[in-house]
Amino acid sequence: MNAEDSIKVGIAGLGTVGSGTVNVIRRNAREISSRIGRPLQIAHIGARRDNPACDTSDIRVSRDIFAVANDPEIDILVELIGGTDTARELVLTAIHNGKHIVTANKALIAEHGNEIFHAAHDKGVDVAFEAAVAGGIPILKALGEGLAANHINWVAGIINGTGNFILTEMREKGREFEDVLREAQALGYAEADPAFDVNGTDAAHKLTILASIAFGIPLQFSKVYTEGIERITPEDVLAAEQLGYRIKHLGIAKDTGRGIELRVHPTLIPRDVLLASVNGVMNAVMVDGDAVGPTLYYGAGAGDEPTGSAVVADIIELGRELTADHDERVPYLGFRADAMAATPVLPIEDVFCSFYIRLHVQDRTGVLADITRILTEHSISIEAMFQKDVGEDELVPIVMLTHQVSERDLNDALEKISALPAVVEPDTMRIRVEMLDA
Amino acid sequence: MNAEDSIKVGIAGLGTVGSGTVNVIRRNAREISSRIGRPLQIAHIGARRDNPACDTSDIRVSRDIFAVANDPEIDILVELIGGTDTARELVLTAIHNGKHIVTANKALIAEHGNEIFHAAHDKGVDVAFEAAVAGGIPILKALGEGLAANHINWVAGIINGTGNFILTEMREKGREFEDVLREAQALGYAEADPAFDVNGTDAAHKLTILASIAFGIPLQFSKVYTEGIERITPEDVLAAEQLGYRIKHLGIAKDTGRGIELRVHPTLIPRDVLLASVNGVMNAVMVDGDAVGPTLYYGAGAGDEPTGSAVVADIIELGRELTADHDERVPYLGFRADAMAATPVLPIEDVFCSFYIRLHVQDRTGVLADITRILTEHSISIEAMFQKDVGEDELVPIVMLTHQVSERDLNDALEKISALPAVVEPDTMRIRVEMLDA
Repeated sequence: MNAEDSIKVGIAGLGTVGSGTVNVIRRNAREISSRIGRPLQIAHIGARRDNPACDTSDIRVSRDIFAVANDPEIDILVELIGGTDTARELVLTAIHNGKHIVTANKALIAEHGNEIFHAAHDKGVDVAFEAAVAGGIPILKALGEGLAANHINWVAGIINGTGNFILTEMREKGREFEDVLREAQALGYAEADPAFDVNGTDAAHKLTILASIAFGIPLQFSKVYTEGIERITPEDVLAAEQLGYRIKHLGIAKDTGRGIELRVHPTLIPRDVLLASVNGVMNAVMVDGDAVGPTLYYGAGAGDEPTGSAVVADIIELGRELTADHDERVPYLGFRADAMAATPVLPIEDVFCSFYIRLHVQDRTGVLADITRILTEHSISIEAMFQKDVGEDELVPIVMLTHQVSERDLNDALEKISALPAVVEPDTMRIRVEMLDA
Repeated sequence: MNAEDSIKVGIAGLGTVGSGTVNVIRRNAREISSRIGRPLQIAHIGARRDNPACDTSDIRVSRDIFAVANDPEIDILVELIGGTDTARELVLTAIHNGKHIVTANKALIAEHGNEIFHAAHDKGVDVAFEAAVAGGIPILKALGEGLAANHINWVAGIINGTGNFILTEMREKGREFEDVLREAQALGYAEADPAFDVNGTDAAHKLTILASIAFGIPLQFSKVYTEGIERITPEDVLAAEQLGYRIKHLGIAKDTGRGIELRVHPTLIPRDVLLASVNGVMNAVMVDGDAVGPTLYYGAGAGDEPTGSAVVADIIELGRELTADHDERVPYLGFRADAMAATPVLPIEDVFCSFYIRLHVQDRTGVLADITRILTEHSISIEAMFQKDVGEDELVPIVMLTHQVSERDLNDALEKISALPAVVEPDTMRIRVEMLDA
């Protein structure tokens, strides 16, 4: 295949995830083509109406989604319409036409996956559905490839963001279920009909898929035991805390040796396990493998671009399969060798950080004034400062947090501060601060 | 290629990771071949001495590791000898002989990767090194494939378990650095020469690799700014806590728009971010992408089988490339369709769990005795029980945690308990408990 030819993608459905997918492909076009080795082109969109959240002005748009599945130019059909009936028909049509499939549709895969894979296998096309479980978290890839050496013992995940938001609010603020649910709907987290979120159906779809990849069993959605969070009260949330636990709505798949457990239900988990600290709308999946032990994968489980991230990753993967020789399906360092960036690495002096500074001073009188004067001269502002009680040898510890400053300015200032007669120079400590916010 | 032919692997080095790799391949042979579509065979091991931790009795073993790299029967050479000089020579020899490479050697890739990839590209072979960064966590796959749609903003990771163990102990127990370091050496976490762990060199090797895959830049180990944790004192750990932070030894790679920051140093991070709760020898890497937002990957960063898990995942990946048609490199559900397991899904009644039970009773006298009698009759033992103050309507809440019991027995007992005259039946609540321990 000619590397100059673009990979041609057709997208059916232009709702939240559809617009996120279009926007990610447009914005990161250069990096994406450096990863695939060929440009990616959105050649055809099928949608009942336009979505002002994304620009489709230079893309062919049809009102009939089947026009996309039947478009001979398309290599990959991306199914983002949701639901099961029309989606199933659309995907089977595209497969019949020899197109590879990418879908974010958990219900479709959980309920009709066995049939779809059978059809795809017959036509020799691929079906990718990373976005169907836990949104942007690449959990299916981790399970099916990254942990492929393991016998999987169990998988346990917070795989519905709305439910986790409700339980988090109930715990942090002592609120009632119904009250938080109304807020979640107002915030757009929950659907107008939030039943699938809170009664566990959505999580059961995702768990069905996780379990098949974990244990190599067929998709068996009808066998998942499912219990919602509607009956959880603030009293239970509080009692669980008092016992050292937190209540989370988990999907659990476990290989017991006697058979597989598949269940979605509210669950008390110890307060000090990492999963208990996954709050708000975030998702996380724990996987316990016999070789690797416990692992955890955390991120946004829904939303336009987080889900689009997984959709486009699947498109890139298919693009790589269509493009590369076997030895370079994924380039050694992810990007093609002929497309490496020349971005410079910055010397540490040019890095901007907040800093924790800890000094030991012999005598407080006047020293603080000297220190703050030096900091001001270097345009370094202080976010927090405290002096501790006199320590050993009558030394007074002073601790400061600075606002953002370049390493160069901070070093200059610290050199002058350390030269002050009252400062015990070898004790001076500085540690960088990172907020790790997005 | 004939699917009946086994994939032939040669392993150079039989230390901790070598024996873990051999044991994982042996134990999970059936599942691994179901994933690849062909059996995997360890055809040749090169090691200066045997390792009693694994059985190599039916495997050809040479004392000269180069005998493996030159063995014409081998498809994949697995380099697990460590170090950079001999390892580089070994890997280049194997590449010259047309073999694919799997390595767990972070120093080798960080310092000689550019040369090795160049040679591999010329010979059309693959080089896989998932095990080189964060042990069993499939972070390179997540970064290079799962998040391939994103422009990566930054990566920040706890990527040295020894250092994290030391900082965790200092915080939890107020201990001194030197004291904990000695314990880490006694426990086998730290090497006899722990310098690379605590001075940041090991983390810098791993960060070099992460940054290249994140940003598409060449490997530039010499440009990583590196600072160790030797100077951190209990006083700093405590002061950080008082300010709402924790000190972690992080590797940070950030795209600032002006250039790339590459730095390893002790770092204050807010106490309530998930990374701050990663304790002991565990590793975790946060990745922030422009589409997906913040994500986190957690697991064991070292050890025989956790690292072996990543080594064998790379072997499976290469095996799949050598075996599969493009459309089924990775089977739809991870396992080959002709190798799906018939393991049954258990009905919920057969699931064993601990339970949280919360009842509202109208009058305490005699009720507790009735409840405990019913539980005893169903062989349900109680781990914890407490009664709360009288609530609304003079009802007394009773909360219990049970030991493991089958759902069937629990339901039977609860039905009888709910039928007691003093129990307000519609209020009865039961929630399953999971410890999520490995």
